[in-house]
Amino acid sequence: MLDHIDSPHALRQLSVEQLPQLSKELRQFIITILATKEGHLGASLGVVELTIALHYVFNTPEDKLVWDVGHQAYVHKILTGRKDIFHTNRQKGGISGFPKISESDYDTFGTGHSSTSISAALGMAIAATIQGKKEQQHIAVIGDASIASGMAFEGLNHAGVTEANLLVVLNDNAIGIDPSIGALKNYFTNVKKGTARENTVFEALNFECHGPVDGHDLPELIRVFKKLQKTKGPKFLHVITTKGKGLALAEKDQVTYHAPGKFDATTGERYAKDTTQLPPKYQDVFGHTIVELATHNKKIIGITPAMPTGSSLKYMIEAFPDRAFDVGIAEQHAVTLSAGMATQGMVVFCNIYSTFLQRAYDQIIHDVALQNLPVIFCLDRAGLVGQDGPTHHGSFDLAYLNCIPNLIIYAPKDEVDLRNIMFTAQLGLPQPIAIRYPRGRGVIIDWMQPFQKIAIGKGSCIQKGKRIAIVCIGTIIHNALKASKDHPKTVSIYDMGFLKPIDTALLDTIFKTYEVVITLEDGTIKGGLGSVVADYAFAKAYKGTLKIVGIPDRFITHGTVEELQEEIGISPNEISKVIDSYL
Amino acid sequence: MLDHIDSPHALRQLSVEQLPQLSKELRQFIITILATKEGHLGASLGVVELTIALHYVFNTPEDKLVWDVGHQAYVHKILTGRKDIFHTNRQKGGISGFPKISESDYDTFGTGHSSTSISAALGMAIAATIQGKKEQQHIAVIGDASIASGMAFEGLNHAGVTEANLLVVLNDNAIGIDPSIGALKNYFTNVKKGTARENTVFEALNFECHGPVDGHDLPELIRVFKKLQKTKGPKFLHVITTKGKGLALAEKDQVTYHAPGKFDATTGERYAKDTTQLPPKYQDVFGHTIVELATHNKKIIGITPAMPTGSSLKYMIEAFPDRAFDVGIAEQHAVTLSAGMATQGMVVFCNIYSTFLQRAYDQIIHDVALQNLPVIFCLDRAGLVGQDGPTHHGSFDLAYLNCIPNLIIYAPKDEVDLRNIMFTAQLGLPQPIAIRYPRGRGVIIDWMQPFQKIAIGKGSCIQKGKRIAIVCIGTIIHNALKASKDHPKTVSIYDMGFLKPIDTALLDTIFKTYEVVITLEDGTIKGGLGSVVADYAFAKAYKGTLKIVGIPDRFITHGTVEELQEEIGISPNEISKVIDSYL
Repeated sequence: MLDHIDSPHALRQLSVEQLPQLSKELRQFIITILATKEGHLGASLGVVELTIALHYVFNTPEDKLVWDVGHQAYVHKILTGRKDIFHTNRQKGGISGFPKISESDYDTFGTGHSSTSISAALGMAIAATIQGKKEQQHIAVIGDASIASGMAFEGLNHAGVTEANLLVVLNDNAIGIDPSIGALKNYFTNVKKGTARENTVFEALNFECHGPVDGHDLPELIRVFKKLQKTKGPKFLHVITTKGKGLALAEKDQVTYHAPGKFDATTGERYAKDTTQLPPKYQDVFGHTIVELATHNKKIIGITPAMPTGSSLKYMIEAFPDRAFDVGIAEQHAVTLSAGMATQGMVVFCNIYSTFLQRAYDQIIHDVALQNLPVIFCLDRAGLVGQDGPTHHGSFDLAYLNCIPNLIIYAPKDEVDLRNIMFTAQLGLPQPIAIRYPRGRGVIIDWMQPFQKIAIGKGSCIQKGKRIAIVCIGTIIHNALKASKDHPKTVSIYDMGFLKPIDTALLDTIFKTYEVVITLEDGTIKGGLGSVVADYAFAKAYKGTLKIVGIPDRFITHGTVEELQEEIGISPNEISKVIDSYL
Repeated sequence: MLDHIDSPHALRQLSVEQLPQLSKELRQFIITILATKEGHLGASLGVVELTIALHYVFNTPEDKLVWDVGHQAYVHKILTGRKDIFHTNRQKGGISGFPKISESDYDTFGTGHSSTSISAALGMAIAATIQGKKEQQHIAVIGDASIASGMAFEGLNHAGVTEANLLVVLNDNAIGIDPSIGALKNYFTNVKKGTARENTVFEALNFECHGPVDGHDLPELIRVFKKLQKTKGPKFLHVITTKGKGLALAEKDQVTYHAPGKFDATTGERYAKDTTQLPPKYQDVFGHTIVELATHNKKIIGITPAMPTGSSLKYMIEAFPDRAFDVGIAEQHAVTLSAGMATQGMVVFCNIYSTFLQRAYDQIIHDVALQNLPVIFCLDRAGLVGQDGPTHHGSFDLAYLNCIPNLIIYAPKDEVDLRNIMFTAQLGLPQPIAIRYPRGRGVIIDWMQPFQKIAIGKGSCIQKGKRIAIVCIGTIIHNALKASKDHPKTVSIYDMGFLKPIDTALLDTIFKTYEVVITLEDGTIKGGLGSVVADYAFAKAYKGTLKIVGIPDRFITHGTVEELQEEIGISPNEISKVIDSYL
């Protein structure tokens, strides 16, 4: 049946009785493709019926459908003309893993970060009112983890005083990437148990409330949506779904099957990789090291906004549950909570993905740096992240942090440096520090070395050549080493380590020594290491050549990290071309 | 009586019966000083009894008291040892207008931006639990406008699943700087009317709920606080106050008397200034121009997060109520709402103070720039703001915006440029734009000139000299003109207008022509115009001297704008010294 459904228009020709069969085929289609192509499995399996019902009842794309955190949108993509290219999902040149306006008229809003859907849909609804489109409907589908983020509340608070045709569908599966947390989640649980009233909170915000309904019961969903379609003003529908629905293992282990990698399409079994001979993930270096440090330093606290598994803070949550906190999708709160703890002398490691720290920019400036509180930020997934693409690359952190007074900014070149800077920071710094490191594996198998203190603001020479200096920050230095392997006597490689305070004595030496200086970073060339070095070079009247290499001033698409590095010129191959141009 | 109260300890020696007299004296003290020294009058008059009761019952500073948006903290400052220096409030070298950790042990957290108090106090409370301080209390006093901001919800959502000794005191006066808006505000109104239950929302979040109580009834406040002092876990108290309480005019016109300037201490009458011969405020240029443009362009929408008066969007709210929105303290929502409207072809002017746009940094990147939606951001109060100090200076915007792809960044040099860029932007740009301008008055009395289109990415020469070029952005150019008035034949002055795209053709000419180039901006030297020019200068192998002048890499204190410009080296006097050093 799925073969014949290439649009919501075709979908609407089916009878309600035919839809369960379509659900079955859609699940099988997704499982079959993701088994080999990988992707976000669990969320989309959970919304098969919900997606069918929405497109069946509402007049998309005239009615506007916004999927919060777009990794629940695979079914939507398949039903809206992208079935035949769905196998290209998340690959370079293929479709995006998230809704994307430029990809389809049915993708009304790009959603890679959470909790934006209510604001975006409300904006569309108010525009429709002004434009006289009185019948147009606007639907935000948002998970129970995402609706607990402050931004979603701001959208609800505004929507409740409008007469906008806005339907907020709560997709309640009690899990984000990790299980949902917080008082609101407990409230939803009480509603499901029948021990709290649905309308308590949302009716107080002036939404007409419906549900909870079974999100896998197609006839019931269609009945409710048809009713809501005729209701004016802001409406709230509580839908209960099961993440991973239809694949037993995915239902059972929802965290792992959020994005399970390759697996057997029939059994769901994941293919075990032998990783014993591989260097560790930076995430695990962080996770195991904080446990090690927290064992000795009782002041250490760990905080993650909703990424205990992704960040590996889960190890500390297991080992020291009283001192490690998952605060939900609440980056703003996470940072100011850290600041509050720091005022009382606690040593707080606040671990946030680089791209999500953008959500707490004001709090870093206003609550941490201005008060000079020694919070230790660990910025996971800095630099390019690969298949998640432009919504998730950690491209901007060096630039947006560098202008903040009092803040130390450091990027380890390898696992040992990451361990040692964590060790150094918890000894007690007089100011806050941001430590950025990438997604994925490092370079050192035997990484658990005894701790050594790192000198703040000191860089070092890693390779000594004569004519050209490549000045690096962070793990991208390994690309410079590879790129210069044929010219070790010509090319020097420097690891600055610290963007701030930058090692000016080392830069003085470099400017005096080399006729060509190349800066290399996996952050934006606007405002990052290259800019810092250029500013200083003019202050020191350096008259040689300075070449800035990094992420160019455009959004970078999705693909493997290696493909993207090649495309933007920071791969070993591309760096070697830069070197050659000066030889 | 106030003469003898120099600490909460002394306060606690008084009987409850003596406290109303103290309230009276405190009000008179504040009114008398603010009548000549200026400051945030209304908020502090409203919390006189609340502040007395809190310090009377709780064991500050061991118990931790956090004042959300600190301009309600004047009474707190007076009662905690700063009575004798209160007249220096907001003056350079004097005390801060907001709580400040370094100023007093009683100031537990610096609060200039709203909605941080719950997170900060919760952090302190969790730290106390870990440290075994079981009896320690933690109180966040937060207004009804501030609690509607998403960040506050994030704090409540986390607090509700802890056993922290946290008391959230809702100071409900139904107004922020302008009247509060939103569904939650309506809910609070219903609670006060008795048509909604207090515990509906906050009990659902697992807070023990109390109130509403009369915030000017000292015996009742003291009774309730004594009860709450003995209650463990998260608690919520709804207190109803009147902003401006005790000064009739301030109670009547709460918006004006938020910060009324100088006034008669007896009558409350403000001293009328004759402003007819002064150039307009940039805010009014914005406010009147958007009305003028919106009259002709029906797609124009105006959005402000809680600053209709401060931004002067109030003129559009009056003229076109269907197309102008105050969304409350909700910068994140404001930006994504704008993006949602822009997807539907609306021309959205989103007006946010530079310092508050830090709250919506992710939304600019992720929801606007990545999708290349032509939202028009108007960044009010960019650069130094004066007495509000480091929490409010708009220092960072040039740096944090410059790394964002697709975004145009422009700073008008005067009122006519501001009008013209607004005119140009609403004609339809293919991408978003950020327009930054300062607090206060411009330079042109006859500013309402016919509209002219501005060429995107083009700078211009304002003064033509021979040896030195000063390359400027924004209104600070007038300091360069004053500084060079004795050397018009030597010093050229360039108005870049656009930080992005920067006028590279003009920079090429400048590099070819001058042996000395000075960049001037009222933003951070890290990552702003100076850095952009330095990067380009190296790319073009410019071998002359480049001097970057702007806000140095430290937080700038409070004082008049002129005092601060002098201190940091961007006053006419200091710029002329830079010029002299190259003559």
